[in-house]
Amino acid sequence: MEPTRPERAPGGHARRRDALRDLLREAGLDALLVTDLINVRYLTGFTGSNAALLVDAGDGAGGEDRTVLATDGRYTTQAAAQTPDLRVLVERACAPALLADRRGTVGFDSAHVTVDGHADLLGALAQGELRRAPGLVETLRAVKDDGEIDALRQACAAADVALAGMIAHDGLRPGRTEREVARDLEERMREAGAEGPSFETIVAAGAHAAIPHHRPTDAPLADGDLLTMDFGALVDGYHSDMTRTLVVGAPEDWQRDLHALVAEAAAAGRAALAPGTATRDVDAAARDVIVAAGFGEQFVHGLGHGVGLVIHEAPALSATATATLDVGMTVTVEPGVYLAGRGGVRIEDTLVLTDSGAVPLTQSPRDLVPESRDET
Amino acid sequence: MEPTRPERAPGGHARRRDALRDLLREAGLDALLVTDLINVRYLTGFTGSNAALLVDAGDGAGGEDRTVLATDGRYTTQAAAQTPDLRVLVERACAPALLADRRGTVGFDSAHVTVDGHADLLGALAQGELRRAPGLVETLRAVKDDGEIDALRQACAAADVALAGMIAHDGLRPGRTEREVARDLEERMREAGAEGPSFETIVAAGAHAAIPHHRPTDAPLADGDLLTMDFGALVDGYHSDMTRTLVVGAPEDWQRDLHALVAEAAAAGRAALAPGTATRDVDAAARDVIVAAGFGEQFVHGLGHGVGLVIHEAPALSATATATLDVGMTVTVEPGVYLAGRGGVRIEDTLVLTDSGAVPLTQSPRDLVPESRDET
Repeated sequence: MEPTRPERAPGGHARRRDALRDLLREAGLDALLVTDLINVRYLTGFTGSNAALLVDAGDGAGGEDRTVLATDGRYTTQAAAQTPDLRVLVERACAPALLADRRGTVGFDSAHVTVDGHADLLGALAQGELRRAPGLVETLRAVKDDGEIDALRQACAAADVALAGMIAHDGLRPGRTEREVARDLEERMREAGAEGPSFETIVAAGAHAAIPHHRPTDAPLADGDLLTMDFGALVDGYHSDMTRTLVVGAPEDWQRDLHALVAEAAAAGRAALAPGTATRDVDAAARDVIVAAGFGEQFVHGLGHGVGLVIHEAPALSATATATLDVGMTVTVEPGVYLAGRGGVRIEDTLVLTDSGAVPLTQSPRDLVPESRDET
Repeated sequence: MEPTRPERAPGGHARRRDALRDLLREAGLDALLVTDLINVRYLTGFTGSNAALLVDAGDGAGGEDRTVLATDGRYTTQAAAQTPDLRVLVERACAPALLADRRGTVGFDSAHVTVDGHADLLGALAQGELRRAPGLVETLRAVKDDGEIDALRQACAAADVALAGMIAHDGLRPGRTEREVARDLEERMREAGAEGPSFETIVAAGAHAAIPHHRPTDAPLADGDLLTMDFGALVDGYHSDMTRTLVVGAPEDWQRDLHALVAEAAAAGRAALAPGTATRDVDAAARDVIVAAGFGEQFVHGLGHGVGLVIHEAPALSATATATLDVGMTVTVEPGVYLAGRGGVRIEDTLVLTDSGAVPLTQSPRDLVPESRDET
């Protein structure tokens, strides 16, 4: 996000820092050293490639006054433009520099800081104490505010528009290559307002559809292929994520059956989404459908994940996950069944949790045979 | 890189693992746990998004037999296709799983493993000992083999072709926005054979050129603007990196002077590249030119960096760097001077070190006024 465009957090970065201070005081921390660049961006709006933030836990203006963003000389101008309300320290070794004159207990994100980085921090902290404090900012990020949901909605819409355009213009015809389809989807997302794709677009035709994370090749689409497209758009830093599996031409019975099974599992997963529900129970609701049909071993991944400033973020929806859903969370539901050598089906949507249940942000039809050429 | 395309390491992944084993034995390690995905790819050709590799230091076939790649169920098919010569362990928590039955001294990359990740590794290792061993694979990666240099050459050529096309088709005319220029460059690189851009394209016009890492906006190019474009192409996973600063229309004297100064510094830096030279001396050779002209404070970053499977990798070329250049290293030389509010100039090339000096892989003209419209 460039300096000249308003951030998706109206008055919101300071509000987010205040919410974080509540968590810090609950955890008995005097400050938190934030080193993950996405977390720095979330808390400040700064988007440079080298930065760290020290958030002082103090109440009111005092805490904000003692909160400092560090970056290097390449970003002096950008920091002034993006974070006019924050003190900025210009120093190449950002994180250690922020600790030099700190006292008290400083939390650090042990899920991001490396073993060598930790040694550098210990060397820089003259008087205070370092304490592991992983995941605090991620906890805040899991629940989106209205501006974030609006950006995610636009990102999802761009993917919907791209897929609809592909189908309307016969863009999934036999002979086109996986790579051409991927490029076309990405171009259409950009035309629909996206900054770009939100991750490396997956287009997998025929037997390739048995590979969940297949990279597009120069292999041409052939009549009768299952065709899985997993793609998303980036809008103001927010990521959408959607998968559809179609058939090129007319489907065979096994393809119809497999698609119907995965569609049923996806519907069960979406229906299980509700505030207060354990994410592992949502995974189970979808997985049970596939296990009951005898394909449990071919559903080789978790059901879904949170999505926002990062394509995979909290909460995870899987058999071993421990999170509980809350209003404002945005998650994917994406069951899949993969048959080595034959193909596979995955159906994925991005949804937002509301008081009255989950609302899909991706809204493309989920049909195996796209409507515009369904002759039945 | 997709499974169906040959890796740029003819017989080379096994050779790279053997070279690593020499380093491990020198360091007194019985094995190395490789957790960085780029390093895993370099040593195996595997490109999935979740993996770890345990390289046993044993001589000959024994070491290779005890070397194991771990990944999760999404990548079973892909791992079989990309690494048919390696044992594969399918397990979501890749790195800890590889330690379960290890004895002896196992190195881990303390520059990549997080503090929490390290705790997980300690919990998983029943009988052996963990030891910090940062940067071993990066040391190998810094010296490119012929296949890698060939990929880098193609990536650099794609950027050259894109820029030449832009100039020939009047793509840098007043009224076009920074964003349009960035998109056009990226599209032209793809047409020239790139998989995509090698990083987020920087296009900075007018006062924006004073921001070294400016993100393109909807601001239009105006007559008399300095225009800095920093961009590169990705070919088979290898990154090119080039910056040119042009003027839109006719240059003013201060623009000519600034450009000439940076061009002289860049030439001095390129001339200083030689096997056996300390990278900090290369930085000094270019920096001295700019300092002597009184602009030392406005050259706010290091002179350059290694480039390969990652856009910034070893060796660093900066005032504080400690590396020494060697044949086969590929580095950038990119001095810049930034004048807040007015604009800036950066000139960057990617070069490969050979026995007879450094050879530029990026070969676009470095003129302030592109030849096709130079009326002098």
